[in-house]
Amino acid sequence: MPTAFAAAWQARDPDALADLFEPDAEFVNVVGLWWHGRAAIRKAHAYGLAVLFRDSALTVVRTRERALSETVTVVHALFRLTGQSPVGGVDRPGDRRTVFSFVMRRGADGWRCASAHNTDVVAGAETHVRATDGTLRAADGRSR
Amino acid sequence: MPTAFAAAWQARDPDALADLFEPDAEFVNVVGLWWHGRAAIRKAHAYGLAVLFRDSALTVVRTRERALSETVTVVHALFRLTGQSPVGGVDRPGDRRTVFSFVMRRGADGWRCASAHNTDVVAGAETHVRATDGTLRAADGRSR
Repeated sequence: MPTAFAAAWQARDPDALADLFEPDAEFVNVVGLWWHGRAAIRKAHAYGLAVLFRDSALTVVRTRERALSETVTVVHALFRLTGQSPVGGVDRPGDRRTVFSFVMRRGADGWRCASAHNTDVVAGAETHVRATDGTLRAADGRSR
Repeated sequence: MPTAFAAAWQARDPDALADLFEPDAEFVNVVGLWWHGRAAIRKAHAYGLAVLFRDSALTVVRTRERALSETVTVVHALFRLTGQSPVGGVDRPGDRRTVFSFVMRRGADGWRCASAHNTDVVAGAETHVRATDGTLRAADGRSR
Protein backbone atom coordinates (compact mmCIF):
# COMPACT_ATOMS: atom_id res chain seq x y z
CA MET A 1 0.00 0.00 0.00
CA PRO A 2 2.68 2.61 0.81
CA THR A 3 4.37 2.04 -2.55
CA ALA A 4 1.09 2.03 -4.46
CA PHE A 5 -0.05 5.18 -2.67
CA ALA A 6 3.21 6.95 -3.53
CA ALA A 7 2.98 5.77 -7.15
CA ALA A 8 -0.56 7.13 -7.56
CA TRP A 9 0.60 10.37 -5.92
CA GLN A 10 3.58 10.66 -8.30
CA ALA A 11 1.30 10.03 -11.27
CA ARG A 12 -1.13 12.74 -9.99
CA ASP A 13 -3.80 10.13 -10.56
CA PRO A 14 -6.71 10.52 -8.11
CA ASP A 15 -8.57 7.60 -9.69
CA ALA A 16 -5.66 5.22 -9.15
CA LEU A 17 -5.27 6.55 -5.63
CA ALA A 18 -8.98 6.20 -4.82
CA ASP A 19 -8.99 2.66 -6.22
CA LEU A 20 -6.63 1.62 -3.40
CA PHE A 21 -9.48 2.25 -0.93
CA GLU A 22 -12.66 0.40 -0.05
CA PRO A 23 -15.90 2.20 -0.96
CA ASP A 24 -16.57 2.95 2.72
CA ALA A 25 -12.99 3.75 3.73
CA GLU A 26 -12.11 6.41 6.30
CA PHE A 27 -9.21 8.84 5.86
CA VAL A 28 -7.83 11.33 8.42
CA ASN A 29 -5.31 13.80 7.01
CA VAL A 30 -2.53 15.75 8.73
CA VAL A 31 -4.76 18.63 9.87
CA GLY A 32 -7.59 16.38 11.04
CA LEU A 33 -9.74 16.54 7.92
CA TRP A 34 -11.75 13.34 8.13
CA TRP A 35 -13.10 11.96 4.89
CA HIS A 36 -15.72 9.23 4.74
CA GLY A 37 -15.74 7.02 1.66
CA ARG A 38 -13.79 6.56 -1.53
CA ALA A 39 -15.53 9.40 -3.39
CA ALA A 40 -14.59 11.91 -0.70
CA ILE A 41 -11.03 10.58 -0.62
CA ARG A 42 -10.81 10.87 -4.41
CA LYS A 43 -12.16 14.43 -4.43
CA ALA A 44 -9.78 15.65 -1.73
CA HIS A 45 -6.76 14.13 -3.45
CA ALA A 46 -7.80 15.33 -6.92
CA TYR A 47 -7.70 18.83 -5.45
CA GLY A 48 -4.52 18.29 -3.45
CA LEU A 49 -2.60 16.73 -6.31
CA ALA A 50 -3.63 19.53 -8.68
CA VAL A 51 -3.03 22.45 -6.29
CA LEU A 52 -1.07 21.84 -3.10
CA PHE A 53 1.18 19.03 -4.32
CA ARG A 54 1.27 19.39 -8.12
CA ASP A 55 5.09 19.39 -8.28
CA SER A 56 5.76 17.34 -5.14
CA ALA A 57 7.52 14.00 -4.70
CA LEU A 58 6.32 11.46 -2.14
CA THR A 59 8.71 8.66 -1.23
CA VAL A 60 8.53 5.75 1.21
CA VAL A 61 11.24 5.88 3.87
CA ARG A 62 10.32 2.93 6.09
CA THR A 63 7.41 0.53 6.57
CA ARG A 64 6.22 -1.80 9.33
CA GLU A 65 3.43 -4.36 9.12
CA ARG A 66 1.35 -6.27 11.70
CA ALA A 67 -1.10 -8.87 10.47
CA LEU A 68 -4.21 -8.91 12.68
CA SER A 69 -6.08 -11.77 11.00
CA GLU A 70 -6.17 -13.68 7.74
CA THR A 71 -7.93 -10.77 6.10
CA VAL A 72 -6.78 -7.66 7.99
CA THR A 73 -3.33 -6.17 8.37
CA VAL A 74 -2.03 -2.79 9.56
CA VAL A 75 0.79 -1.16 7.63
CA HIS A 76 2.63 1.87 8.96
CA ALA A 77 4.85 3.92 6.68
CA LEU A 78 7.13 6.87 7.16
CA PHE A 79 7.02 9.07 4.05
CA ARG A 80 9.11 11.99 2.87
CA LEU A 81 7.33 14.78 0.98
CA THR A 82 9.36 17.27 -1.05
CA GLY A 83 8.52 20.02 -3.54
CA GLN A 84 5.21 21.10 -2.01
CA SER A 85 3.64 24.11 -3.77
CA PRO A 86 3.81 27.57 -2.15
CA VAL A 87 0.96 27.96 0.32
CA GLY A 88 0.43 29.64 3.68
CA GLY A 89 2.79 32.49 2.83
CA VAL A 90 5.73 30.13 2.31
CA ASP A 91 7.38 30.58 -1.10
CA ARG A 92 9.69 27.58 -0.92
CA PRO A 93 8.22 24.96 1.38
CA GLY A 94 10.70 22.66 3.08
CA ASP A 95 10.59 18.88 3.19
CA ARG A 96 8.05 17.14 5.41
CA ARG A 97 8.03 13.67 6.95
CA THR A 98 4.73 12.04 7.77
CA VAL A 99 3.71 8.77 9.42
CA PHE A 100 0.78 6.98 7.79
CA SER A 101 -1.13 4.03 9.15
CA PHE A 102 -3.12 1.99 6.65
CA VAL A 103 -5.61 -0.67 7.75
CA MET A 104 -5.79 -3.14 4.87
CA ARG A 105 -8.47 -5.75 4.24
CA ARG A 106 -8.48 -8.60 1.76
CA GLY A 107 -11.73 -8.95 -0.14
CA ALA A 108 -12.90 -10.85 -3.21
CA ASP A 109 -10.79 -8.65 -5.50
CA GLY A 110 -7.66 -8.35 -3.38
CA TRP A 111 -6.34 -6.02 -0.69
CA ARG A 112 -7.80 -2.57 -0.23
CA CYS A 113 -7.44 0.09 2.43
CA ALA A 114 -10.30 0.37 4.93
CA SER A 115 -8.79 3.19 6.98
CA ALA A 116 -5.88 5.59 6.48
CA HIS A 117 -4.50 8.12 8.93
CA ASN A 118 -1.59 10.52 8.39
CA THR A 119 0.38 12.74 10.80
CA ASP A 120 3.29 15.13 10.28
CA VAL A 121 6.49 14.37 12.16
CA VAL A 122 7.59 17.42 14.17
CA ALA A 123 11.24 16.91 15.11
CA GLY A 124 11.97 17.47 18.80
CA ALA A 125 8.33 17.96 19.79
CA GLU A 126 6.30 15.95 22.26
CA THR A 127 2.85 17.41 21.70
CA HIS A 128 0.97 20.45 20.44
CA VAL A 129 -0.25 23.43 22.43
CA ARG A 130 -2.86 25.99 21.40
CA ALA A 131 -1.57 29.54 21.80
CA THR A 132 -3.61 32.58 22.75
CA ASP A 133 -3.97 33.56 19.09
CA GLY A 134 -5.63 30.21 18.42
CA THR A 135 -2.77 28.65 16.45
CA LEU A 136 -1.33 25.27 17.35
CA ARG A 137 2.35 25.15 18.19
CA ALA A 138 4.68 22.22 18.59
CA ALA A 139 6.01 21.92 22.12
CA ASP A 140 8.39 19.85 24.14
CA GLY A 141 7.98 19.31 27.88
CA ARG A 142 10.72 21.70 28.90
CA SER A 143 9.76 24.86 27.08
CA ARG A 144 7.21 26.19 29.49
CA MET B 1 -12.25 2.18 23.52
CA PRO B 2 -12.68 5.97 23.26
CA THR B 3 -14.56 6.05 26.59
CA ALA B 4 -12.08 3.71 28.30
CA PHE B 5 -9.14 5.71 26.96
CA ALA B 6 -10.65 8.96 28.25
CA ALA B 7 -11.40 7.36 31.63
CA ALA B 8 -7.80 6.15 32.06
CA TRP B 9 -6.63 9.61 31.02
CA GLN B 10 -8.93 11.31 33.55
CA ALA B 11 -7.69 8.95 36.28
CA ARG B 12 -4.03 9.75 35.31
CA ASP B 13 -3.57 5.98 35.30
CA PRO B 14 -0.91 4.88 32.80
CA ASP B 15 -1.35 1.22 33.80
CA ALA B 16 -5.07 1.25 33.04
CA LEU B 17 -4.35 3.09 29.81
CA ALA B 18 -1.62 0.66 28.76
CA ASP B 19 -3.86 -2.30 29.57
CA LEU B 20 -6.20 -1.21 26.76
CA PHE B 21 -3.46 -2.08 24.27
CA GLU B 22 -2.05 -5.33 22.94
CA PRO B 23 1.56 -6.08 23.95
CA ASP B 24 2.75 -5.35 20.38
CA ALA B 25 0.48 -2.37 19.71
CA GLU B 26 1.56 0.64 17.65
CA PHE B 27 0.76 4.24 18.61
CA VAL B 28 1.35 7.40 16.57
CA ASN B 29 0.84 10.64 18.47
CA VAL B 30 -0.04 14.13 17.24
CA VAL B 31 3.54 15.16 16.46
CA GLY B 32 4.45 11.87 14.78
CA LEU B 33 6.04 10.17 17.77
CA TRP B 34 5.66 6.50 16.94
CA TRP B 35 5.69 4.09 19.86
CA HIS B 36 6.07 0.33 19.44
CA GLY B 37 4.55 -1.87 22.12
CA ARG B 38 2.57 -1.51 25.31
CA ALA B 39 5.59 -0.70 27.49
CA ALA B 40 6.55 2.25 25.28
CA ILE B 41 2.92 3.43 25.18
CA ARG B 42 2.72 3.20 28.97
CA LYS B 43 5.98 5.11 29.48
CA ALA B 44 5.00 7.94 27.14
CA HIS B 45 1.61 8.35 28.77
CA ALA B 46 2.97 8.09 32.31
CA TYR B 47 5.14 11.09 31.43
CA GLY B 48 2.42 12.96 29.55
CA LEU B 49 -0.22 12.48 32.23
CA ALA B 50 2.21 13.65 34.94
CA VAL B 51 3.65 16.64 33.08
CA LEU B 52 1.91 17.88 29.94
CA PHE B 53 -1.65 16.90 30.84
CA ARG B 54 -1.72 16.63 34.63
CA ASP B 55 -4.72 18.98 34.97
CA SER B 56 -6.34 18.29 31.63
CA ALA B 57 -9.73 16.88 30.75
CA LEU B 58 -10.25 14.58 27.77
CA THR B 59 -13.80 14.04 26.55
CA VAL B 60 -15.31 12.06 23.70
CA VAL B 61 -17.22 14.26 21.23
CA ARG B 62 -18.19 11.75 18.52
CA THR B 63 -17.36 8.18 17.52
CA ARG B 64 -17.70 6.09 14.37
CA GLU B 65 -17.11 2.37 14.00
CA ARG B 66 -16.53 0.03 11.06
CA ALA B 67 -16.27 -3.70 11.72
CA LEU B 68 -13.72 -5.29 9.37
CA SER B 69 -14.12 -8.92 10.46
CA GLU B 70 -15.41 -10.97 13.39
CA THR B 71 -12.31 -10.06 15.37
CA VAL B 72 -11.21 -6.66 14.05
CA THR B 73 -12.97 -3.30 14.09
CA VAL B 74 -11.84 0.28 13.53
CA VAL B 75 -13.16 2.97 15.85
CA HIS B 76 -12.66 6.65 15.12
CA ALA B 77 -13.26 9.24 17.80
CA LEU B 78 -13.21 12.99 17.93
CA PHE B 79 -11.93 14.15 21.33
CA ARG B 80 -11.82 17.50 23.06
CA LEU B 81 -8.81 18.26 25.27
CA THR B 82 -8.98 21.11 27.77
CA GLY B 83 -6.77 22.30 30.61
CA GLN B 84 -3.41 21.35 29.10
CA SER B 85 -0.42 22.41 31.21
CA PRO B 86 1.65 25.45 30.18
CA VAL B 87 4.29 24.39 27.63
CA GLY B 88 5.91 25.88 24.56
CA GLY B 89 5.77 29.39 25.97
CA VAL B 90 1.98 29.31 26.28
CA ASP B 91 0.78 30.14 29.79
CA ARG B 92 -2.89 29.29 29.27
CA PRO B 93 -3.21 26.72 26.51
CA GLY B 94 -6.48 26.73 24.62
CA ASP B 95 -8.71 23.77 23.90
CA ARG B 96 -7.68 21.22 21.30
CA ARG B 97 -9.70 18.77 19.25
CA THR B 98 -8.08 15.59 17.99
CA VAL B 99 -9.22 12.71 15.80
CA PHE B 100 -8.11 9.28 16.96
CA SER B 101 -8.37 6.02 15.06
CA PHE B 102 -8.20 2.83 17.10
CA VAL B 103 -7.83 -0.58 15.46
CA MET B 104 -9.37 -3.06 17.90
CA ARG B 105 -8.90 -6.81 17.96
CA ARG B 106 -10.80 -9.42 19.94
CA GLY B 107 -8.55 -11.98 21.60
CA ALA B 108 -8.96 -14.64 24.27
CA ASP B 109 -9.40 -12.00 26.97
CA GLY B 110 -11.55 -9.52 25.11
CA TRP B 111 -11.02 -6.48 22.90
CA ARG B 112 -7.71 -4.65 22.90
CA CYS B 113 -6.22 -1.95 20.72
CA ALA B 114 -3.66 -3.13 18.15
CA SER B 115 -2.99 0.30 16.65
CA ALA B 116 -3.82 3.87 17.68
CA HIS B 117 -3.21 7.07 15.74
CA ASN B 118 -4.04 10.63 16.79
CA THR B 119 -4.08 13.93 14.89
CA ASP B 120 -4.93 17.49 15.94
CA VAL B 121 -7.80 19.16 14.13
CA VAL B 122 -6.68 22.52 12.70
CA ALA B 123 -9.80 24.51 11.88
CA GLY B 124 -9.82 25.98 8.39
CA ALA B 125 -6.61 24.28 7.29
CA GLU B 126 -6.12 21.87 4.42
CA THR B 127 -2.55 20.78 5.00
CA HIS B 128 0.75 21.74 6.62
CA VAL B 129 3.65 23.61 5.06
CA ARG B 130 7.22 23.81 6.32
CA ALA B 131 8.41 27.42 6.57
CA THR B 132 11.95 28.66 5.99
CA ASP B 133 12.64 28.61 9.73
CA GLY B 134 11.83 24.90 9.79
CA THR B 135 8.53 25.15 11.63
CA LEU B 136 5.36 23.56 10.30
CA ARG B 137 2.43 25.88 9.65
CA ALA B 138 -1.17 25.11 8.94
CA ALA B 139 -2.21 26.27 5.47
CA ASP B 140 -5.25 26.43 3.29
CA GLY B 141 -5.02 26.33 -0.50
CA ARG B 142 -5.69 30.04 -0.99
CA SER B 143 -3.10 31.61 1.26
CA ARG B 144 -0.14 31.43 -1.07
